[in-house]
Amino acid sequence: MVENRLDTTFQALADPTRRGMLASLALGETSIGELGEPFRMNFAGAAKHVKVLESAGLVQRRKAGRKQICTLRAEPLAEAEQWLKQWEEFWSLRLDRLQAIVEGSR
Amino acid sequence: MVENRLDTTFQALADPTRRGMLASLALGETSIGELGEPFRMNFAGAAKHVKVLESAGLVQRRKAGRKQICTLRAEPLAEAEQWLKQWEEFWSLRLDRLQAIVEGSR
Repeated sequence: MVENRLDTTFQALADPTRRGMLASLALGETSIGELGEPFRMNFAGAAKHVKVLESAGLVQRRKAGRKQICTLRAEPLAEAEQWLKQWEEFWSLRLDRLQAIVEGSR
Repeated sequence: MVENRLDTTFQALADPTRRGMLASLALGETSIGELGEPFRMNFAGAAKHVKVLESAGLVQRRKAGRKQICTLRAEPLAEAEQWLKQWEEFWSLRLDRLQAIVEGSR
């Protein structure tokens, strides 16, 4: 089964360490080792989370000498936000309807 | 460990069946059996997904005779959207910076 892009994005976001890593990457590209530091994580632990982010298309990885440098790819976040935005419209619609009911009952 | 609300929301959204169930619930409250129908799912299968949605605070369940009626609770979706919105600001900031660089190099 081909996994849906929204599936992998939301899955990647369902972990505080990975959300924290994305926040670090928002400040600029970083090595896997450095990404793990705030979480007192060794290379293997950090690499495991980076792999999930990479599979979701949220991180691009490249080698620079002995380091592996990660860069943020934010497109999937925009898609996830777009999906959630449709609910925003639904809430507004419900609020409009509620308002119409309230005004109609005056 | 107390699970973060964003963790459980994103986890619940990381499945196309559960996202479809939320879409059904957006049209109005529904029984667990009816929620499973579009996915050709039996009661047990549907109930499993509803439990995940309920744990994430996205669904409220009540008994009505022999049926279990589900209602959408959209607050966690708003919180998830809020979290994603901060990235939107970050993108705009990056675009502003890029624009400044481009304009500065003219």
